[in-house]
Amino acid sequence: CGEANASGKGWILSIWEVCKEDNNRVIFSLKVGLAVLLVSLLILCRAPYQVFGVNIIWSILTVAMMFEFTVGDTFNRGFNRALGSLLAGILAIAIAQLAFRIGRIAEPIIIGLSIFIVGTVTSFMKLLPSLVPYEYGFRVILFTYCLIIVSGYRIGNPIRTAMDRLYSMAIGAIVAVLVNVLIFPIWAGDQLHKELVSNFNSVADALEECVKKYLDEDGSEHPEFSKTVTDDFPDEPAYRKCRSMLNSSAKLESLANSAKWEPPHGRFKHFFYPWSEYVKVGAVLRYCAYNVMALHGVVHSEIQFQITVTKDSYGLVSEEYIPQGEYTFIQLAIPINTIILWGAPCNLRITFQKEIQDAASDAAELVRCLGKDICDMQRSLKTTSLLKWVHSSTERLQRAIDMHSYLLTSTYEAPDSNTSKPQPRLSLTLSATLSNLSNQLAELPKPNSGPPSQPLRAIPPPQSESYHEMMRKQSRRLHSWPSREVDAFEEKGFSTDFIPKIRVLERTATLSLATFTSLLIEFVARLDHLVEAVDELSKMSKFKQEAL
Amino acid sequence: CGEANASGKGWILSIWEVCKEDNNRVIFSLKVGLAVLLVSLLILCRAPYQVFGVNIIWSILTVAMMFEFTVGDTFNRGFNRALGSLLAGILAIAIAQLAFRIGRIAEPIIIGLSIFIVGTVTSFMKLLPSLVPYEYGFRVILFTYCLIIVSGYRIGNPIRTAMDRLYSMAIGAIVAVLVNVLIFPIWAGDQLHKELVSNFNSVADALEECVKKYLDEDGSEHPEFSKTVTDDFPDEPAYRKCRSMLNSSAKLESLANSAKWEPPHGRFKHFFYPWSEYVKVGAVLRYCAYNVMALHGVVHSEIQFQITVTKDSYGLVSEEYIPQGEYTFIQLAIPINTIILWGAPCNLRITFQKEIQDAASDAAELVRCLGKDICDMQRSLKTTSLLKWVHSSTERLQRAIDMHSYLLTSTYEAPDSNTSKPQPRLSLTLSATLSNLSNQLAELPKPNSGPPSQPLRAIPPPQSESYHEMMRKQSRRLHSWPSREVDAFEEKGFSTDFIPKIRVLERTATLSLATFTSLLIEFVARLDHLVEAVDELSKMSKFKQEAL
Repeated sequence: CGEANASGKGWILSIWEVCKEDNNRVIFSLKVGLAVLLVSLLILCRAPYQVFGVNIIWSILTVAMMFEFTVGDTFNRGFNRALGSLLAGILAIAIAQLAFRIGRIAEPIIIGLSIFIVGTVTSFMKLLPSLVPYEYGFRVILFTYCLIIVSGYRIGNPIRTAMDRLYSMAIGAIVAVLVNVLIFPIWAGDQLHKELVSNFNSVADALEECVKKYLDEDGSEHPEFSKTVTDDFPDEPAYRKCRSMLNSSAKLESLANSAKWEPPHGRFKHFFYPWSEYVKVGAVLRYCAYNVMALHGVVHSEIQFQITVTKDSYGLVSEEYIPQGEYTFIQLAIPINTIILWGAPCNLRITFQKEIQDAASDAAELVRCLGKDICDMQRSLKTTSLLKWVHSSTERLQRAIDMHSYLLTSTYEAPDSNTSKPQPRLSLTLSATLSNLSNQLAELPKPNSGPPSQPLRAIPPPQSESYHEMMRKQSRRLHSWPSREVDAFEEKGFSTDFIPKIRVLERTATLSLATFTSLLIEFVARLDHLVEAVDELSKMSKFKQEAL
Repeated sequence: CGEANASGKGWILSIWEVCKEDNNRVIFSLKVGLAVLLVSLLILCRAPYQVFGVNIIWSILTVAMMFEFTVGDTFNRGFNRALGSLLAGILAIAIAQLAFRIGRIAEPIIIGLSIFIVGTVTSFMKLLPSLVPYEYGFRVILFTYCLIIVSGYRIGNPIRTAMDRLYSMAIGAIVAVLVNVLIFPIWAGDQLHKELVSNFNSVADALEECVKKYLDEDGSEHPEFSKTVTDDFPDEPAYRKCRSMLNSSAKLESLANSAKWEPPHGRFKHFFYPWSEYVKVGAVLRYCAYNVMALHGVVHSEIQFQITVTKDSYGLVSEEYIPQGEYTFIQLAIPINTIILWGAPCNLRITFQKEIQDAASDAAELVRCLGKDICDMQRSLKTTSLLKWVHSSTERLQRAIDMHSYLLTSTYEAPDSNTSKPQPRLSLTLSATLSNLSNQLAELPKPNSGPPSQPLRAIPPPQSESYHEMMRKQSRRLHSWPSREVDAFEEKGFSTDFIPKIRVLERTATLSLATFTSLLIEFVARLDHLVEAVDELSKMSKFKQEAL
């Protein structure tokens, strides 16, 4: 009993939360209650009941079926119902007259046949893609036609039946519309406006969150990926919002459709307000959001995950880590920790941290500012300056990546033999050059005690050798790719084979930095179109220009 | 008149297309016609009419409101209607009795108050997120309650009214269900099954199309990007399908909800078939599809577009193209066309063409095979071998990128001074080395007649110099970033400033190859989870194992 009490309390609490979150729901509910009460009074009071008769109960049905959340939807549904009923009424009266004139025996046959045809045609038409918005109208045509023609046949006088029905429906519709519009109206246009603004904010939040996560991440904690594919990323609320925004793309469209039915109201003062422009801006924003999804994908990438494993195995294989091919170069000058630098993407991230951070936060700021402009219905001057800022910070990022691009790959490793033509000549020349250097080798510090043999032909052959070896081994191990951890531990013995594999992985992961930044740059590039779309919207909606 | 005739013909043709495309629509329409005809016969024929009386017209309304496209939806709506009517009937009778006992004057007040409360509560509840699927049920409760209690008050005997209504509704519901289930039933489960399979195929098609476009593209034709943001990419039907799949994520869910109402049928033989598992597989597939969207984004990237401009300006600046900093190295051995190699991403694409092609087509094949497995409801052995193939071809791609990673950046350019510690030491060493080489310079061919001065300190200083210069110039030109073409032509005079800018762009574009491949590799990595999800589905749905 105590438990039931607690769960009851929890239930009431959750309902209270829902109310607080959006009190339009409570207002809507009370309005529905009021509307049905008003219609019921027509029957409960003696005077109107005596005027309208028993058919007045149709008005209750009309209110219940027509009263929608937003004003636009109510108008839309009312239009469907009115037009549907009118068409059905006219058709029913015409067919009833025709059937009556043809004769007593043929009458039920003609009526039955007409019901079948009307049922088939309306059902077919409501499935046509271009007529789907009027689905309710076709439904209304079907049952109104059936009701009028059938009761006309039994009671006689289909015109009287049709008229009674139309009267009572009109009363219901008028009550529904008046209550909906006059008492705390909930406009679809307002909802659309708010929805679009909140979409802007969630894209900006998701971008910032994603970049923050990428930069903060020290590679130590990666949740099991398979668990995170379909789940909610509970620590990333903005990403979840952004994803749900992508999934609810139909919402903007249906709100825009409803908003078109609404008269000018509140801040949307002129007729034919360009609601469809909101949908277009939403589409461009979604296009930007796809890039945020891709960025998020890089943060939670499979490849990143594998790097962690590699780093764990580092300690185990650190002695054998330096491949033979690169030995000479390393021995030349580079201390051993350099290799760790280009092996560990965390350090790389720190190198570009400031530029990435700047570009991302400027971009997020611009998105937010665009959202605010729409929210305030004005064209602010801030947008232009922000756009300039975003471009400059992105160019800084581009240049930083360019300047340090050698960090993204292994610069100090010369190319192997099977590449484009010029390289062999270079390596020949370099080899020749290096032979002159062999004297100097003794003076340089030796960080590693490995075999110092073959400094001259060191560059191309070992690499291609290990490549072929890798290919061979790899074909034996095709199955192991998805679960590298096991692989890594299994093969501690085969250090020669294991090391190239680690390197391949590491560099692929290092390239993920390139991926991340170029996706970020692409996001910024798409912002131009977002600014353009918002500009178009502000022109068509006649937003006021911010004063200088 | 001829025009009207032609447009009429076009209209009929388009309707014919719709019919051919999915003849379920025609079947559904005819079934609706049949159902309303059957119900109407109850009134048109004398015998049943005399039994049921005038209330039988409610059954027509029930058929019109309840008859849905799929069997599951019809059951669902029928359940909502039945339970709603039952609850409303019981409540109405109870309240009517209560009001009647309290007294003649209080009766209408109590009835009016109860109508208001029922209207408010049902409207509020249908907006609660967890109760949204039962929205129709709450609507039914509202109008059934109002109709019964009001007509009971006027006509007297609410129990009789409620009973009549329930009878005729039950008749309508039975007719609707029988016609829907017995005559060419359209199962939501079947639809869901087909939808998921076609989603698999459209992801595979979109991937192949996207990769093909990337590899075929010679950089010569890029449509104006702004035109393609919101439009349909008319030459990429698979991409459009994939995008519309992402936008219609709610469809799978609603089909799964409907399918749960359906009894075992056709190939889905056991009770509690795991339809929700289909939604999960769909979510994982969508997660993969986001990567296809990102790949598509790279193909139509802003940055790629800018490269075309750069290539156009090539001829104009080819003489000044080689920056001073790199001069010594170039003079050493590399012919001038090498620079064009790493400047032009099209050539780069050709370098990796085979690997990218292999990985993409293997991945697409795997996705298609998974789709076919679901379609045939079997666990084929081919999937496992295909997964192996995909892994091996992706590893080949990874290795190829790794081997040729120097192509992705400017390998032959040494790093500038403001990087991590080891480099200065290297460049010092190399400078020292190079001084020994200066004798050899005369023997080497001179591809360019530029100034051969300062071969020793050439490497770091000019780079950092131009960096600062760039930063300065850039701040003057912040606004030009979106429209680079103009920029490029404006600044033909400033070749010193123009060249670094081209290089930055080029390398960013070259990094886009890294982006493309790592997104492709990421796609493959996500396929593991797709295979897992399909495996889970096949276990829970008891797919048959393919014979060896």
